Parts: sequence; C-alpha cells; structure tokens
Amino acid sequence: MRRRDFVQQAAALAALPVAGFDGPTLTRRASSPDTPRVNGERLNQSLAAFDRIGRTAGGINRVAYSPADLDGRAFTLNLFRQAGLTPTIDAAGNMLARVEGTQAGLKPILIGSHVDSVTDGGNFDGPLGSFSAIEVAHTLHDRSLRLRHPLEVVVWQNEEGGTIGSKLAIGALTDADLDKVARSGKTIREGIGLIGGSVPRLASAVRRPGDIACYFELHIEQGGLLEKAGRQIGVVQGIVGLRWFEITVTGFGNHAGTTPMDQRQDAMLAAAKFTVAVNDAVRGEPGRQVATVGRVVVSPNTTNVIPAQVVLTVDLRDLDQGKIEHFTSEFERLAREIGAATGTAFAFRRLVDSEPALADPRLMDGIEASATSLGLSHQRMPSGAGHDAQEIARIAPMAMIFVPSVGGISHSPREFTRPEDCAHGADVLLNAVLAADRA
Amino acid sequence: MRRRDFVQQAAALAALPVAGFDGPTLTRRASSPDTPRVNGERLNQSLAAFDRIGRTAGGINRVAYSPADLDGRAFTLNLFRQAGLTPTIDAAGNMLARVEGTQAGLKPILIGSHVDSVTDGGNFDGPLGSFSAIEVAHTLHDRSLRLRHPLEVVVWQNEEGGTIGSKLAIGALTDADLDKVARSGKTIREGIGLIGGSVPRLASAVRRPGDIACYFELHIEQGGLLEKAGRQIGVVQGIVGLRWFEITVTGFGNHAGTTPMDQRQDAMLAAAKFTVAVNDAVRGEPGRQVATVGRVVVSPNTTNVIPAQVVLTVDLRDLDQGKIEHFTSEFERLAREIGAATGTAFAFRRLVDSEPALADPRLMDGIEASATSLGLSHQRMPSGAGHDAQEIARIAPMAMIFVPSVGGISHSPREFTRPEDCAHGADVLLNAVLAADRA
Repeated sequence: MRRRDFVQQAAALAALPVAGFDGPTLTRRASSPDTPRVNGERLNQSLAAFDRIGRTAGGINRVAYSPADLDGRAFTLNLFRQAGLTPTIDAAGNMLARVEGTQAGLKPILIGSHVDSVTDGGNFDGPLGSFSAIEVAHTLHDRSLRLRHPLEVVVWQNEEGGTIGSKLAIGALTDADLDKVARSGKTIREGIGLIGGSVPRLASAVRRPGDIACYFELHIEQGGLLEKAGRQIGVVQGIVGLRWFEITVTGFGNHAGTTPMDQRQDAMLAAAKFTVAVNDAVRGEPGRQVATVGRVVVSPNTTNVIPAQVVLTVDLRDLDQGKIEHFTSEFERLAREIGAATGTAFAFRRLVDSEPALADPRLMDGIEASATSLGLSHQRMPSGAGHDAQEIARIAPMAMIFVPSVGGISHSPREFTRPEDCAHGADVLLNAVLAADRA
Repeated sequence: MRRRDFVQQAAALAALPVAGFDGPTLTRRASSPDTPRVNGERLNQSLAAFDRIGRTAGGINRVAYSPADLDGRAFTLNLFRQAGLTPTIDAAGNMLARVEGTQAGLKPILIGSHVDSVTDGGNFDGPLGSFSAIEVAHTLHDRSLRLRHPLEVVVWQNEEGGTIGSKLAIGALTDADLDKVARSGKTIREGIGLIGGSVPRLASAVRRPGDIACYFELHIEQGGLLEKAGRQIGVVQGIVGLRWFEITVTGFGNHAGTTPMDQRQDAMLAAAKFTVAVNDAVRGEPGRQVATVGRVVVSPNTTNVIPAQVVLTVDLRDLDQGKIEHFTSEFERLAREIGAATGTAFAFRRLVDSEPALADPRLMDGIEASATSLGLSHQRMPSGAGHDAQEIARIAPMAMIFVPSVGGISHSPREFTRPEDCAHGADVLLNAVLAADRA
C-alpha cells in the first residue's frame, strides 16, 4: 500500500476502528488497512512550524542553552500540552510527560529524542523523533486509549553537545563534566539552571537498570543507505562504537628544491600513504565499518618545504567492538610499515573511545513487524551516528527506527526528510510501542 | 692530496710561487702543489665573526632591510676594504667593487653572492659565496696580481626575498614590484633607500647582455647529494626551472559515521591518492626531477566530517623545461583519473613558473679542471634552489660552484658547511676565475 496523502489519511484515521489496538493480530497481516496510524498531517505541521525557530541564513541554529534552544523548548512544551500531556522538567533539564498505564507494577515505556541542533544544522535531526513521540501520545489521547504500561515521552536536553541529557539520566556525568563549556558558550552547569533543571537535585533525575521497560527513538538516518536501497524504514541494530585517533607523523623538514626524492623524510607523503591505506583496509573487508581522515594539519605548511610533521585524525566506527580492535591493530601495523618505508615515525593517541550500543532483538522484531503491517519496506542497519538511545541502552532494552534522509545529508541546512517518511516513522513508532506494550 | 690544516695552509700559500697564475699548465696537472689557493683561515675567520650578526635563539635573522641586514652589510663593506677593494653601492643597493684588468676593452668577470638570510636561517647560505669572492680579490691583492679582465666583486641585496638585487641588475623588476612588502615589513622601494640605493636612478644599475664576460657564484649545496656521494665540489649544470601549482580538490562534506564508504566523495582521500601518485610519478622516471606537496589545507578539517575540500600545492623542479611540461601533463592526467575514481574534482592554478637557467659549458669545464688541479673530488649536478646566478644567466655566461651542506640542511639554524669545504670552494672559485681570465 502506498501512503495516501495527509488529508485522506487524517480522514481515514478518524474513521478507523480502534479495536485491535491491543490485539495480537495486527502484526500478522501485511499492510492491514486497520493498522493504527498517527496524524501525519499534524506531525508535519508541527515540524514546519518549528522550522521557524532558530532559522538563520546558515541553517537551523538551536544549539543547547541558546535563546533559540529556549524558544524551541517552549514550543515543545506547548506541543506536549496540545497532546493532552502534562510536561515537567526534571532536575537534568529533560522535558518529560507520563501517562499512567492500566496495569499496576509495570515499568514505563520511554519514547523520545531531542530538539537542540548543531550549528548551521537542519530541522529534522531530533525534532522528528521528539514530535513523533508526542504525536504517538496525542494519537492515543485522541482515541482515549491507555497502554498497559505507563508511557513516558521525553525530550532530552543538549544531545548535540554529547548526549548530555540522556547521560545525566543514567548518572554518567561527573561534577567536572558539568563545567565543560557547551557550544553556546555556557557551561553545562549553567545550562541546566537556564533550562529549568537543578544541579543540586540531579540525582533525582537518574534512572537505574530495571527502571524502564524499554526505550524507542525515531530519528532521521543521517546517511544515504535507505535512500539508495529504496527502503522506507531502517530497523537499527545498534549504535556503532567509535574510536578517534590523533596520529602525529614526524618526518624531517627540508628544502623542496634541493633534497633528492630518495633522501626525503616527507611527513605529508607518509600521511597520504596512511590515509589511502586506512581507506583500503576498511573497504577491503566485508561489513559496514567506516574510517575517516577528517582533520589534517601540516607543518610548516609551506609550498617549498618538505613537511616535517603532520597531525591527522582517524574516526573509526563499527557495531562490533571486535572489529574496532581489529582495525586498530591494522592501522598501527600500516603506520609501522609506512613509517619504515618513508623514514617517518607515527605516534598514536586516542581522543574518544565509546563502545557499541546494541538494540534489543525483540524490540527490533516488533519494529520490523510494525513496518510490515503498515506495508512499509524496511531493512536492518547500524546507526553510524551517536544518539541518546546509546546512553539509555546502558540501563534498558533499546531500539531505534530510521527514516530516509534525502541525499543522505544531515547536520546541514540541506537536511531534509519527506513528510510522508516522517509520518511513516511515527506510524512505526506507534505500532512498535503497541507491540512492546503487549509483550 | 688531502687538504692540510689552515695554519699549515696559510704558511704554504705565503710560500707559493705566484708564477703560473696566468699559465695554461695549471689545470693540466692533477693536485698540483703550486695550484694557487686563497687564505682559507682568513675566510673562515670572517664567516665565524659574521655568525654573531643577526644571531637569535631561533637562528640567523638577517632578513633584507632589517637592522641585522644593515649590520651585515656594514660588516661586508669593511671586509671589502680589508681586501684592498673600494666598495660602492649601486642604485639597486647592491654592494660592488671593481679592480681594473691589464688588457683594455675586456668585459668584467663578476663574482659574488648575497649576505641577507631567511627567517631563522643559517650563516652559510650567501655569506660563503660573498666572502669567498672578496677573499679571491684579497688573495690577488696580496699577491699584487691583476687579471686581464676587470674583476668585479658583488654582494646582491635581498636574495632571499626573490633574487631582488640581481633582478634589478638585469632590469627585470617593474615599478609595481617595488611596492611589494618584504619579510622585514618594508617595501622593496623603501628597502632600496634604506640600504643606500636610489630608486630614481635604478636604470644606472642595469647590466645589458654582453656587459659581463661571465659570472661565478660559490654557494653551499643546500641538499645532501654531495655529502651522500662523498664529493667535495659540485659543478652546477644550471638552476632548475620551477613550477608551483595550487590544486583545489572538491568533494562533498558529509557525516563520517553515517556515510557508507562506497557513497563518499572524500576530498582528503582524493588529495592523499594524488600526493602519493605525484611522488610515484616523479620517482618512476630516471632523472633528478623533484616534486613536493608542501601545503595542504583541509575543509572543514573536523574529525567527524568527511572533508569537502582540500587545497594543496605541488612544487615541481627540473633542469629540463621539457620535463616540467611532461610532468605537468602527468599530474593533470593523474588528477583526472583520481577525480573520476573518487567522485571529486581537481582544479589547477599556477602560482609560480620560472624556466631553468643553464650554466655555460666552458665555465663548467673550467670549474671541473680547477677542482681536479686542487685534488678535489667533484661531480656535475643541478641546483634545486634558486640563486642570483639564475638572473645573471639571462645576460651573461654563468656558472656555480657548490660545496657540501652537512646533513643536506639549509634555511635552518642547523645549516653548516665544514671550514675545509668553505676553503675548498673558495680555492675552486679562485682557479675558475683564473681559467676564465685566460680564455
């Protein structure tokens, strides 16, 4: 079934029987006409209205704790209220609303994302998942439906600054971390106060393992995989582990005119060979591992001097920690070989090291079944980018739903996800929540 | 014959018969004990004394028109006088002295170099050739010897800023060039005034083709070729032509975590492949051509973003203009291939283009014969660096003598040429002048 347009859709949703919301048959019939759906038009209208907040000539600028972020949070709190929710701000500054379930003693199902942006970013990275979570609650409210489990809708603060809100929610930040300066120029400590949190009460916002039944997050893919494959839904297998290396290549600076080619210790040549070798290594083995040389600083960086030193970074990611270790060894071996061949020395330093966060297999099955039931094509895939879900995965079963990014572009004013894909993602989120609620 | 130490040498020189200075037999006997020599001890004492002028923690700093350059010029004028010469400053600011010859109507033999330095440079690049030229005149003066030709000793101003003094001497600078700012922060126009030249009278300093019998310049090699080959004297075949390219590689910036390896347009990967390919190309053919990627600027230069753009430079040099054209085509072809394979675009711009300046074959023969006569090992080689000789080559037969740089290092506080090699170079200069005078 192809997605109908939103006016038709809204009318159809209004006419749909609500029976079957808690029945097990829904996921068994492909493209069932009575599979529940959110109000996709309403979701897209909210996203369109939100696009005006923090929009500048360079793109969306709602970096955490900035005036535009505060405006975005006020907009979001209002959206909670329109959905029949009563939002609160926890001590960490995360926005939260809870709808009690029908069965006592069950832990909450948590759904949400973030609304802050990078500098010169787009309007979909974060808001889509946040507004869709609110829309799921809104749809349930419209239908006067309550889940067995409590439903909690969350909008994490300062995701782009390093999943700060979700890290605070699992107690993963130290007191010293709070003094780090965010992109807005304010410290996290200052930011928490500014957005209505309370540093002295931070412990009250911490969730423990077992506190949450499960967590779902809908997000734009931020890559081109789904678009290229022609698939509508990505069933995220996990968030890749990440290792950042800073590598210093030391050669010997000398005259570019008078030093024969066979008497050089050219740090740039060595760095170039290494950059090519890293690329060949990660592409030479099956899998979805990625490695990027993104930053290169050459000294003295003068046209007629053979480079004496190059400092470069490698960003290595994979869902499998074993592969991260494997390629780490590979890169070190390649560096030794290239160093020996070029008369240069390579020194490695690790800047960042985060382990993969795997999605829960049963939740992935539920997402897959929901997509099938909605007649949406889907595929499993890793998330190459970090998300709040990677923090919550430390304390609860987690899963993520991806929808395509046009051109694979994100963190850019050109970031765009089609309205129908936004609605598809929210529909899958709704049905995945319903499936989890039945489990 | 091995070189005796300087005290012995000075004594020996004093005892040497001056007969044979103008006889043709000198160059026919290998390692002749009566081959004339300069006062090597005196030369090295001058160089050692000069080392104190402009010496800073970072190296020698006598950049043209700086207070240290003025001090260096005053020292040099005094050295002219000690050699029995009467120095003048021409309108271009070059320091000059002339000793008339015995035969009327002959054009002058010109010898010299420069005394300005780069920032944080050494004490040998320039001063060795300048002081050796003065020492040659001093030796002739000590012996009361006069050449058939007039002998002119010259110390060119601002060589390191782009062979300014020698360019002015051949009328190669425009009025607009005079307003360019030199490393000292002063314009060339201001600098000329400061060092005793006269911009309104610049035309009076210009030499025309045919005005000069020949030009010799002794210089440190500034490379490691002679040291590696174990040779004492380099007979310079010419000064290489030079072409500088600025190449902009345009890819597409994207998320380093979410963009699959096969969907990237990575400008840094393309730039790295090109850097390796340029190196392979110049090393893959016989000859002494050199190419260097010395400057690399990456955008956005962030660890987790695939580089969107890289601007890099290639410095290409060879004695044969045909090879420069050949490798230009090669680099353009490689760029097209790598661009097509990586989904990137390469755009070339030429920053600098200077043609090779070839040494005069008869003058080279004279240098070679002088070295042989002095018992010094020698070999022919190109100059990979630029020198004032390349300008004078436009109007007169030119030749250069090289002596080894320890470790091939120059333009560095570690620049060093052994005292015995300095003396060897000056001895060869003396004998090459004598040979040319006989011709």
